[in-house]
Amino acid sequence: MMTRFSTGAALLALLAAAPALAEEGMWLPSQAPALADRLKAAGLALDPAALADLSAAPLNAIASLGGCSAAFLSPQGLVATNHHCVYGSIQYNSKPGQDYLTDGFLAANLGDELPAAPGSRIFVIEALRDVTAAMTRGLGPKLSGQARYEQLEKNRKALIAACEQQESRRCDVRAYFGGAQYWLQQQLEIKDVRLVYAPAGGIGNFGGETDNWQWPRHTGDFGFYRAYVGPDGRSAPFAKENVPYRPRNWLKIADKPLAEGDFVMVAGFPGVTQRLWTAAEVAHNFSAVYATDQRLRAEYADLISKVTAGDKAAEIKYASILRGVDNYKKKLLGEIAGAEAIDLIGRKQREETAFRAWVAADPARQQAVGPALAALDALVAEANQARLDNLRLATLGRPQLLTAAQLLYRWAKERAKPDAQREAGFQDRDRQLLKERLAQIERRYDAKVDRAIMEQALAEVAQVAPEKRNMALENAIRATGLDALYGQTGLADTATRLAWLDKPAADFEAATDPFIKLAVTAYPGDIAAEARAKERAGRMQAARSAVMAAQMDFARSQGRLIYPDANGSLRLTFGKVAGKARDGLVWTPFTTAEGLVAKQRGTGEFNAPAKAIALLKARDHGRWADPKLGTLPVDFLSTVDITNGNSGSSTLNARGEFVGLAFDGTLDGVVSDWSFDGTINRTIHVDARFMLWTMDRLDGAKRLLDEMGVAR
Amino acid sequence: MMTRFSTGAALLALLAAAPALAEEGMWLPSQAPALADRLKAAGLALDPAALADLSAAPLNAIASLGGCSAAFLSPQGLVATNHHCVYGSIQYNSKPGQDYLTDGFLAANLGDELPAAPGSRIFVIEALRDVTAAMTRGLGPKLSGQARYEQLEKNRKALIAACEQQESRRCDVRAYFGGAQYWLQQQLEIKDVRLVYAPAGGIGNFGGETDNWQWPRHTGDFGFYRAYVGPDGRSAPFAKENVPYRPRNWLKIADKPLAEGDFVMVAGFPGVTQRLWTAAEVAHNFSAVYATDQRLRAEYADLISKVTAGDKAAEIKYASILRGVDNYKKKLLGEIAGAEAIDLIGRKQREETAFRAWVAADPARQQAVGPALAALDALVAEANQARLDNLRLATLGRPQLLTAAQLLYRWAKERAKPDAQREAGFQDRDRQLLKERLAQIERRYDAKVDRAIMEQALAEVAQVAPEKRNMALENAIRATGLDALYGQTGLADTATRLAWLDKPAADFEAATDPFIKLAVTAYPGDIAAEARAKERAGRMQAARSAVMAAQMDFARSQGRLIYPDANGSLRLTFGKVAGKARDGLVWTPFTTAEGLVAKQRGTGEFNAPAKAIALLKARDHGRWADPKLGTLPVDFLSTVDITNGNSGSSTLNARGEFVGLAFDGTLDGVVSDWSFDGTINRTIHVDARFMLWTMDRLDGAKRLLDEMGVAR
Repeated sequence: MMTRFSTGAALLALLAAAPALAEEGMWLPSQAPALADRLKAAGLALDPAALADLSAAPLNAIASLGGCSAAFLSPQGLVATNHHCVYGSIQYNSKPGQDYLTDGFLAANLGDELPAAPGSRIFVIEALRDVTAAMTRGLGPKLSGQARYEQLEKNRKALIAACEQQESRRCDVRAYFGGAQYWLQQQLEIKDVRLVYAPAGGIGNFGGETDNWQWPRHTGDFGFYRAYVGPDGRSAPFAKENVPYRPRNWLKIADKPLAEGDFVMVAGFPGVTQRLWTAAEVAHNFSAVYATDQRLRAEYADLISKVTAGDKAAEIKYASILRGVDNYKKKLLGEIAGAEAIDLIGRKQREETAFRAWVAADPARQQAVGPALAALDALVAEANQARLDNLRLATLGRPQLLTAAQLLYRWAKERAKPDAQREAGFQDRDRQLLKERLAQIERRYDAKVDRAIMEQALAEVAQVAPEKRNMALENAIRATGLDALYGQTGLADTATRLAWLDKPAADFEAATDPFIKLAVTAYPGDIAAEARAKERAGRMQAARSAVMAAQMDFARSQGRLIYPDANGSLRLTFGKVAGKARDGLVWTPFTTAEGLVAKQRGTGEFNAPAKAIALLKARDHGRWADPKLGTLPVDFLSTVDITNGNSGSSTLNARGEFVGLAFDGTLDGVVSDWSFDGTINRTIHVDARFMLWTMDRLDGAKRLLDEMGVAR
Repeated sequence: MMTRFSTGAALLALLAAAPALAEEGMWLPSQAPALADRLKAAGLALDPAALADLSAAPLNAIASLGGCSAAFLSPQGLVATNHHCVYGSIQYNSKPGQDYLTDGFLAANLGDELPAAPGSRIFVIEALRDVTAAMTRGLGPKLSGQARYEQLEKNRKALIAACEQQESRRCDVRAYFGGAQYWLQQQLEIKDVRLVYAPAGGIGNFGGETDNWQWPRHTGDFGFYRAYVGPDGRSAPFAKENVPYRPRNWLKIADKPLAEGDFVMVAGFPGVTQRLWTAAEVAHNFSAVYATDQRLRAEYADLISKVTAGDKAAEIKYASILRGVDNYKKKLLGEIAGAEAIDLIGRKQREETAFRAWVAADPARQQAVGPALAALDALVAEANQARLDNLRLATLGRPQLLTAAQLLYRWAKERAKPDAQREAGFQDRDRQLLKERLAQIERRYDAKVDRAIMEQALAEVAQVAPEKRNMALENAIRATGLDALYGQTGLADTATRLAWLDKPAADFEAATDPFIKLAVTAYPGDIAAEARAKERAGRMQAARSAVMAAQMDFARSQGRLIYPDANGSLRLTFGKVAGKARDGLVWTPFTTAEGLVAKQRGTGEFNAPAKAIALLKARDHGRWADPKLGTLPVDFLSTVDITNGNSGSSTLNARGEFVGLAFDGTLDGVVSDWSFDGTINRTIHVDARFMLWTMDRLDGAKRLLDEMGVAR
């Protein structure tokens, strides 16, 4: 499956230039009117302008889970998303003898619906407003990079604070087109999230790692949450007396069969793409960054495997890190192969050459854009080197107690300032997340492993140029010695660790805990490195936003519309249900029940419930079979343009009705994060009819079918 | 690609029972008349009876390379086979600055044709005669297992010796249907083999390991040898004055385009299948043997990787072992997945239940076959355990100097007997092969690695029950100590090692070399173990041949014809050009030039010559394009039934004309060695038109095209 989008990864989301081709595009809803002709030609039966209105159907039925996408499917706040997006909540509610991961979970009634995993949220999209003017207020050409960066942060925090004065709203302001635009996204934050229904693991994760990124696929990757609010209708933390949230709109289940060639669209929250990076950035990434990244991850995984070998408890604690490294490697190798297949570097260079020739062809343009282009080139060269250095320096962010101590001390230092002046991530609005992060170490920390990771990191950072390192920190670690560090610290204990939260900085400075002492020692160096990064980021924003504005002009001059790189905000993408053909091979657009039965092993990753297999073998499809296929569809392919973060997005037909959920791409298409190719890229969706069949025939979820308006 | 068939693997070829389904079958040529209706229905345009005649076309154009299959394509002894079958000869003739593996090789004229790698042979099939009567002479029910085994060996040697009295003939007698039949295969042995043409590695191995066992495939896996004989037309070792051999027949190149659905057949030498094994043997193999086998191979590979790390010379010496372990693992995992996919164990059990019910239904049959069935069941249980033990004991056969010393001493002991009384493999006819094997150690031996392998083996065998081990050998190794063994032996030196060949046993018994002393110590235990194995094999032959005879009766009673398991002898298989469809996926039967160009990377495994890519991009297909496809075909799929050893087999159309070469299967079909499934199994062939295009447009091999009668 696609991984959930982690907001940390958004830091990678720099921006540059590439033209939009037919079928591709992660569009801002506000771009829908400008796309009206294309949307109509593709088959949209709604008024395209309706897609720009976040306060009306269908877009006001769209929600985010933070990392996954979702949508309301009933007037009682029922929310559909992917199985892998509710996985944590299924796991959280399972225990020996009550294995919902394997057996699935279905609440018989509202009272049986279970609290989702701690920290679960449903964010209901309410608005996406252009705040470019407010964000760029006070940005003069005379500002240093760091001053520019800080002015932007100040403007951003003011906009967010104003927005979040509305009760229970979560707001963000993100850069689009490298800072040529800024948009504020406003969401209602639902804090009481409950698990309603998840099919058996043998449906929801049928095919497991083996089928991950593959076609043909037969995974029923879906599950249901419900949004709850206080009896007064206001967002509230979990409470027994809370009631289902009543969204203003919800998606109607399509009652006409979806078929090959049909128009489909997806509204969701794609995380990160790099389609607008410059050719120099992309080339550096594929020639240098990925090699270092692979090496560092492989060494990390090897070390963890070695040190945890034979220690079952430690193995479990670090298993998710190893799985992450494995999944990342699979995707990275797919990206590298895909980049070769589509000649990514050549493609980027040709696009950039055309743009620069257009700039150079007009002296006025050359004068206006030339300096920004030159500045961007110089900054990219500098940033490319910094990316490599930072990858290596980041290994010292892996030992968990050191990072915890640094976060705690930073919190103490920031908390001494007025909220609006604090660094992003250290404002009062971030405290809960920080606390959860500090608590989670409990389930992921083993002293001997952490210590080995520290040793490995020290050896790695020692090879970076000294002026880029935090020498005070490294020297202090060596002077203390790892025996003393791990022998004397109290931070491995969760209560002790959490007790440091909100203590004043002076307490840290007087502390004897060796990790706390390291955090105090590291602080000046960390702040200095941050200042250097801000200086570069500020200058980069100035140059890139100017270049991107020119690239938008260039596109306009050719009659093209371009869309910003994915950045975790709401986007629309449309296309059609379609397979694809390669030489010797054809992917047909639908998989069916027969293919699922053929893959069934009754064990391991291909282990649908015996009842499901028996029903399918008996061709007991209920009313969910497709008339053309003559059987029950399971998954389908489309040309819509998605990435991580779109997981769980509802798929809508030409009338805006629910026809399935996007949940994955294919390995030969993961290079789409860098450049889309309509002949290659396909999105995998679970077909709504397979979801409904599972609920109806397999699990007897009549209550939910009623709610969704599809009961007989 | 399929691995070449190694005769050592033939030891695994035990036999039992399974019915023949439509499309499947590795038929004896003599079965062709009985298949006449099926062959005609499938589309054969020749008289089916012609396929039983090894002295006439097309079968007298078929040859074996020993491990690979081949065929004559011209009256001047030009032989077509797979690139991977001539690989060793390309490698043998390459040197720095003359890299035929990468660049390919084309002899401009006869005088430029290069000697193939030492030991290369072309065996021209001449006869396959039923010798069951002669083989079973003197086999009474009273004989012990060992006596029965030895009588069979005596009969076999007499038949081979008589056959090999004809000059330059190589003859073998193999068991069919578990010893219910024996056939003598007579081949003319061509000793002067020359390399004529091999395309560039970027054609012949396009796709490399990545595409191995995969579809779609774009490999031009072909190359050409030529058979040479003395000026008098008699087989002779390499000599400058030798002349091309003139076969009585050769395959004509098809001049009508091959198309989807067309009849195709393959005549070649499939190595080993286990389709007639009993259900108990198959179940034990998949439940126990494969697990132990995988563990032992993985530990072996891990050890070699660890010990050779950082020592480039040692890494090279052991690289082919590691590649073998990797390729085997890939195939084994494919077999395990395939066995689950087709429910192999259940299928075997159902077949066997039906057969046993048929036996039990008739008291006379029950009386005739019942005892053999009971005996077979008991022997299988015993043999199953022995297979597991022997896998583990075989690790002590990995240290190369110990094995060399044991072979040399055994040779000395056997040589003291008259040739006909010697153990198979130690007759005068085997001396050359033995010598080559002893010499090859030079390129594959490193003392520190061998020593580590010895240590690992000692630990492994120590876990087998003592009565099954060679305790005298193990004790002597421990008493000598590995320091002394590896420090004092002279056998690592090739001249010293070869000097022991043909020395009398007494010299060994008086020797001081520690490995020679070990060989002498090991001898009585080895002979005793061999006697136990022969006892079991003799009894097994008695029981299994009786059961198999009854299974043939059972099949006949149902109007079915069955074929023996592959055993390295000539077989026919037929089917049609066909892709296949799975849910969501279609394999179309032909790949084309466009697919090759799309895979091209210009580096690594996808690196066709730049000229090939330029020609294909320019659609310069010469006269080789397919009218229906509208482009040049590269590879194609068919339903013919092949396995290792069939590599290089010519593919013939309905008129017996050459249309390509079989070279691989697909990973989802490797379980066919255990049970064929027509919906799953496909063979991959290189299309003759891609071969001819490569020769014509890319490499300018006009001389060869002339010879093959296809010059314009």
